[in-house]
Amino acid sequence: MIRIFVTGGTFDKEYHELTGTLAFKDTHLPEMLRLGRSRLDVAIETLMMIDSLEMTGADRALIVDRCRTAAEPRILVTHGTDTMVETARTLAAAFPADEKTIVLTGAMIPYAFGSSDGLFNLGSALSFVQVLPPGVYIAMNGRSFPADRVRKNRDTGVFESI
Amino acid sequence: MIRIFVTGGTFDKEYHELTGTLAFKDTHLPEMLRLGRSRLDVAIETLMMIDSLEMTGADRALIVDRCRTAAEPRILVTHGTDTMVETARTLAAAFPADEKTIVLTGAMIPYAFGSSDGLFNLGSALSFVQVLPPGVYIAMNGRSFPADRVRKNRDTGVFESI
Amino acid sequence: MIRIFVTGGTFDKEYHELTGTLAFKDTHLPEMLRLGRSRLDVAIETLMMIDSLEMTGADRALIVDRCRTAAEPRILVTHGTDTMVETARTLAAAFPADEKTIVLTGAMIPYAFGSSDGLFNLGSALSFVQVLPPGVYIAMNGRSFPADRVRKNRDTGVFESI
Amino acid sequence: MIRIFVTGGTFDKEYHELTGTLAFKDTHLPEMLRLGRSRLDVAIETLMMIDSLEMTGADRALIVDRCRTAAEPRILVTHGTDTMVETARTLAAAFPADEKTIVLTGAMIPYAFGSSDGLFNLGSALSFVQVLPPGVYIAMNGRSFPADRVRKNRDTGVFESI
Repeated sequence: MIRIFVTGGTFDKEYHELTGTLAFKDTHLPEMLRLGRSRLDVAIETLMMIDSLEMTGADRALIVDRCRTAAEPRILVTHGTDTMVETARTLAAAFPADEKTIVLTGAMIPYAFGSSDGLFNLGSALSFVQVLPPGVYIAMNGRSFPADRVRKNRDTGVFESI
Repeated sequence: MIRIFVTGGTFDKEYHELTGTLAFKDTHLPEMLRLGRSRLDVAIETLMMIDSLEMTGADRALIVDRCRTAAEPRILVTHGTDTMVETARTLAAAFPADEKTIVLTGAMIPYAFGSSDGLFNLGSALSFVQVLPPGVYIAMNGRSFPADRVRKNRDTGVFESI
Repeated sequence: MIRIFVTGGTFDKEYHELTGTLAFKDTHLPEMLRLGRSRLDVAIETLMMIDSLEMTGADRALIVDRCRTAAEPRILVTHGTDTMVETARTLAAAFPADEKTIVLTGAMIPYAFGSSDGLFNLGSALSFVQVLPPGVYIAMNGRSFPADRVRKNRDTGVFESI
Repeated sequence: MIRIFVTGGTFDKEYHELTGTLAFKDTHLPEMLRLGRSRLDVAIETLMMIDSLEMTGADRALIVDRCRTAAEPRILVTHGTDTMVETARTLAAAFPADEKTIVLTGAMIPYAFGSSDGLFNLGSALSFVQVLPPGVYIAMNGRSFPADRVRKNRDTGVFESI
């Protein structure tokens, strides 16, 4: 069983038809897993539904707490890309390296926009979380990075090793 | 560098507008990697573009041969799902377990149909091929299976352990 | 109130995941009208769900009969493109020019393939049927043609005046 | 020949991947006409690329002027829905009823979001503009409205008769 914590991010942004703005409603994770024909045993829980630029220390403390109390040793966290690295490091500081495998992933393009990186990243992150040893990782652009050796390049939108 | 061998399959089927039938043209792999914002270093080579029900022993011998002569130790093979298991076993018989990591993947829905399992499976397979130990595997439905312990359930279209 | 008779055609073809073939299930008309944010008052009735190459004289007699008995003076018929002209002429022979406005439309690409001509043709045909004088027409490629002055160019897939 | 003037609106909004916001780049009209397999003879000209809430009197004067100087008697204007009625009335005041057929249309969902009302409305508006008598109209939700007898219901996003 893989635990999936949803925190929002571009992944789940939707177009609000009456106001003409981007907003959050419910997560698309179940629909994406259905489209991907996933047969993994997962438990999805939405912790928050926010843009990661608005994520506070209290939000991160909640994510850490829920990762700690979750029974599952393998956890996926969907997250906005802007502060994904910061949350990954907060998690890495909270979990000894021999405890759980936690993978954070997200998207540059909202799933609701049709052709997107969301399905690709979800398939990637769910695979890495099954086979990587305990630790905290970011899975983006088809690659996995340990939490302390990654940054988001703001000019290109790409995650890269440091 | 990951080597990707394209052999066709549902993955790459397209709708032929004038005849109203399904057919193969070029592979969608480069476009899918672009949509997925993949930053992996890959080399794509199309070996054939066929429905896997039509795959012959000579076709499989070619796949084995190209996997052998490829310089890369990590190889992804896109393949129709109907005979994917057979090709996986042919590869497993040809490669000692300590040699290369070879992952086969495919799709139940053509990529050209829009909302599909192709992007999900591609993200999954590219992740497994980076981290699994040498051996031949099938990556479908978010899971990985050793070549000798998997079958496709023809009633559900799902790959399962045996 | 506009009456819509569904007869199948590429419009409603779907990809059958387990067999890897194209097939018909239910019509996509209601979903397409919802996506198009249509607020027209319509009544949809599926007469048959077939490839128009398989349409028989009995099928065409049924379409004529249902157009005759329908209370609505404005009728849309969705139809495969291969024999759309033949059905249009059968209808034109059955209806005097001062009776009903009947518009046939279809698609070159199945709606289920994502980016398609189906929504465009549906918006076009529903508009023509509201404003054209009584008669039988084909609405394809953004244009309308009287039933007796149109053919499908099989090399290009385009409907053109004769 | 139908003249198409592009002014922006939801129709042409895109998702900007690096900033995570909605923005305008180039118009999608040519791509939409290609997807719709349109064979109409059209000339597309982008007058501006703005949200219609930001449209000024000078912008509207430009639209009126270009509709006046255009050689074509049939003109389509793509426009944001929020002030489409205001522009339609400005055009109606400028053109005597026996002069040109001008149809305004738009979308509630950006075309770039995949499944949208854009293709449906475009097919509808291009059909109405071919057959409606001279006058200024709005084509939305599958219906056509004379410029002086329509409003947008802001609660539902639907255009309705007044």
